[in-house]
Amino acid sequence: MSALKFTIEKKLEDRLGRAGLLETPHGVIETPAFIPVATKATIKALTPEQVESLGADAILANTYHLYLQPGDEIVRDVGGLHKFANWKRPMFTDSGGFQVFSLGAAYGKGVSKITAHGSEELMLPEALEDGAAKLASIDAEGVMFRSHINGSAHYFTPEKSIEIQHNLGADIIFAFDECTSPHEPIHYQKESLDRTHRWARKCLKFHVEKGMNGKQGLYAVVQGGKYKELREESARTLSEMDFDGYGIGGSFSKDDIHEAVGWVNNILPEHKPRHLLGIGEPEDLFSGIENGCDTFDCVAPTRNARNGGLYTSFGKINIGNNEYMNDFSPIEANCGCYTCKNYTRAYLSHLFRAKEMLGGTLATIHNLYFIVNLVKKIRQSLLNENFFEFKEKFLKKYNG
Amino acid sequence: MSALKFTIEKKLEDRLGRAGLLETPHGVIETPAFIPVATKATIKALTPEQVESLGADAILANTYHLYLQPGDEIVRDVGGLHKFANWKRPMFTDSGGFQVFSLGAAYGKGVSKITAHGSEELMLPEALEDGAAKLASIDAEGVMFRSHINGSAHYFTPEKSIEIQHNLGADIIFAFDECTSPHEPIHYQKESLDRTHRWARKCLKFHVEKGMNGKQGLYAVVQGGKYKELREESARTLSEMDFDGYGIGGSFSKDDIHEAVGWVNNILPEHKPRHLLGIGEPEDLFSGIENGCDTFDCVAPTRNARNGGLYTSFGKINIGNNEYMNDFSPIEANCGCYTCKNYTRAYLSHLFRAKEMLGGTLATIHNLYFIVNLVKKIRQSLLNENFFEFKEKFLKKYNG
Repeated sequence: MSALKFTIEKKLEDRLGRAGLLETPHGVIETPAFIPVATKATIKALTPEQVESLGADAILANTYHLYLQPGDEIVRDVGGLHKFANWKRPMFTDSGGFQVFSLGAAYGKGVSKITAHGSEELMLPEALEDGAAKLASIDAEGVMFRSHINGSAHYFTPEKSIEIQHNLGADIIFAFDECTSPHEPIHYQKESLDRTHRWARKCLKFHVEKGMNGKQGLYAVVQGGKYKELREESARTLSEMDFDGYGIGGSFSKDDIHEAVGWVNNILPEHKPRHLLGIGEPEDLFSGIENGCDTFDCVAPTRNARNGGLYTSFGKINIGNNEYMNDFSPIEANCGCYTCKNYTRAYLSHLFRAKEMLGGTLATIHNLYFIVNLVKKIRQSLLNENFFEFKEKFLKKYNG
Repeated sequence: MSALKFTIEKKLEDRLGRAGLLETPHGVIETPAFIPVATKATIKALTPEQVESLGADAILANTYHLYLQPGDEIVRDVGGLHKFANWKRPMFTDSGGFQVFSLGAAYGKGVSKITAHGSEELMLPEALEDGAAKLASIDAEGVMFRSHINGSAHYFTPEKSIEIQHNLGADIIFAFDECTSPHEPIHYQKESLDRTHRWARKCLKFHVEKGMNGKQGLYAVVQGGKYKELREESARTLSEMDFDGYGIGGSFSKDDIHEAVGWVNNILPEHKPRHLLGIGEPEDLFSGIENGCDTFDCVAPTRNARNGGLYTSFGKINIGNNEYMNDFSPIEANCGCYTCKNYTRAYLSHLFRAKEMLGGTLATIHNLYFIVNLVKKIRQSLLNENFFEFKEKFLKKYNG
């Protein structure tokens, strides 16, 4: 019994990519799909209606953050995350593993989603910005870590992560995993991977014992760093367990993503959905989709937006630049988003200079619309059998 | 030829209060009405659609702020404030006088909208929060002041204020006035008042010469501090000039408002609309309406909201208090606002603790809905001839 049903509508010839329908307790996600990140049970600067109307099918909230604040029991008592945050459509929660490790044991060792091309800073988890505590310690059963809010000590086990995610009540939840730094030696990666696999088994057992497997879909997280044999071993080991879907986690260097995702998805069962964790730049989305991933989440579009970095089909622009102060065109002509249909670059420039909250709101709407709808267009290209033409045309203009 | 048409629908027996319709180039305002403040061409934290859907007929932007940033010429070139800010309904701009004086010549002498009951801090103009320059100097022709943004020197004359407001293009604009501290001696108040009257005449002359009197309604601003003879003289002097309406300005102590407004409105022509500048707490709205004011603006509802101070029919609450962390009721049961229909106090408490922008958005929606709809209910009580019963019942519960 699974809480999810995944149907493949169309496959890319000789490749892993596919378009599908992922049915969840709160509705259908048309895949491939980009899932905006609602770290603390809110897409920063937007109402749920704004998120829905820009085209998002689902959102992803962070277990680590919600456990610390307001606490998963408060969310449970109010009736779950959907009711708490007034979000009526499908929802994911991550396992907390990435935050625990990027803020804790592996801090300073390069645990971030992208480690090359100077994008570390961009991709660091939200919590690091708050001046996080830097200590965590791992044992066979779990991880002790300190709150980035007040330094209090906490202990996550696989069961604890799942219990929290049961309380939060998302449609799709993730097994607790260790997210290693790519700079750790292979013997550590191997030891860590074994732990992640043991923990995955424990998560699945706990989930089923609690009778939640018909209510929430549980994904395992494939790890293994940059090592082909470890990635393949991880995919094989986890494939043998009856998860509802699979996440692909870990730190990547920009050039590794393409390869690593392919190694893994060649092994994972084809009929189960796959989520690429923390990835969301246009090039990476094309690559992830081509290599068989179905859903993606990333803070980049929302965080870039709040910093004035705006996506356009001809690359990113920064609305803080002086040239936009008296530019009376929209961010992008022919963009169908609320922001582009109603506001000029001059107004956005003014809002950012005046530090007005509406600036973040309008920029976030535009960026999420851009990325969510890019993935919708990629989906359409899969259905239309013109994925590669679309990819080439898009990236040529985008990187132009 | 006036850009405005004001029709009185119903008058309060033996009192000055009235319900009316104020027709402007961008639509009708049903009066009395509360006009939310969009200091920098945005109601902080809201989209125009959110402002409209909570019931606001019109908004008021600040000339001083928009002159400095982005500059009134940019707003003119983009097609005016309505287009710039995507606001399709009526709009006011103030004269800049209050900001110039509260930040400049009279700074530290108590120029704020309410000087008693410890509410100074609450009511200080936005700009003071930014660490404003404290220097301005007045001469017969105008005022030299320094920008609170970069310290640059600027000179406002009556004509300059009107020219800026022509560029901004609001439906209702205000003559440039001197806003004195209530602590200035009467001989200064008198000298200042004569200047304000001379400036009013110059504003009107300039407005008509530019052929803008059919396009934007121009209000004079009655001053005179706490002195009955000066307030009455001001009302008489300005009544003799053909303004489209009248603002009532200046600093008040809480107990003075009621009286001062009555002195003035007994003299101002009955058939012209009257705006009470910078006033917006429930008690003061009842008092201003009873004494013949038609429209009101104030930053209190929006600023309180961003600080977590929320209006309810039983008084204000602070959502930051611990008791709300696991309170699963809305801000106020039976409130018809978007926030109360969809979110718990627990969620708002979480958003404020997590410093999430959506907290300010949801709180602002609630507070503006509360105040805008309170004034709508007062209007209805005037039409229903039960104003005093409504006032007594409301204030008893609110202050109880």
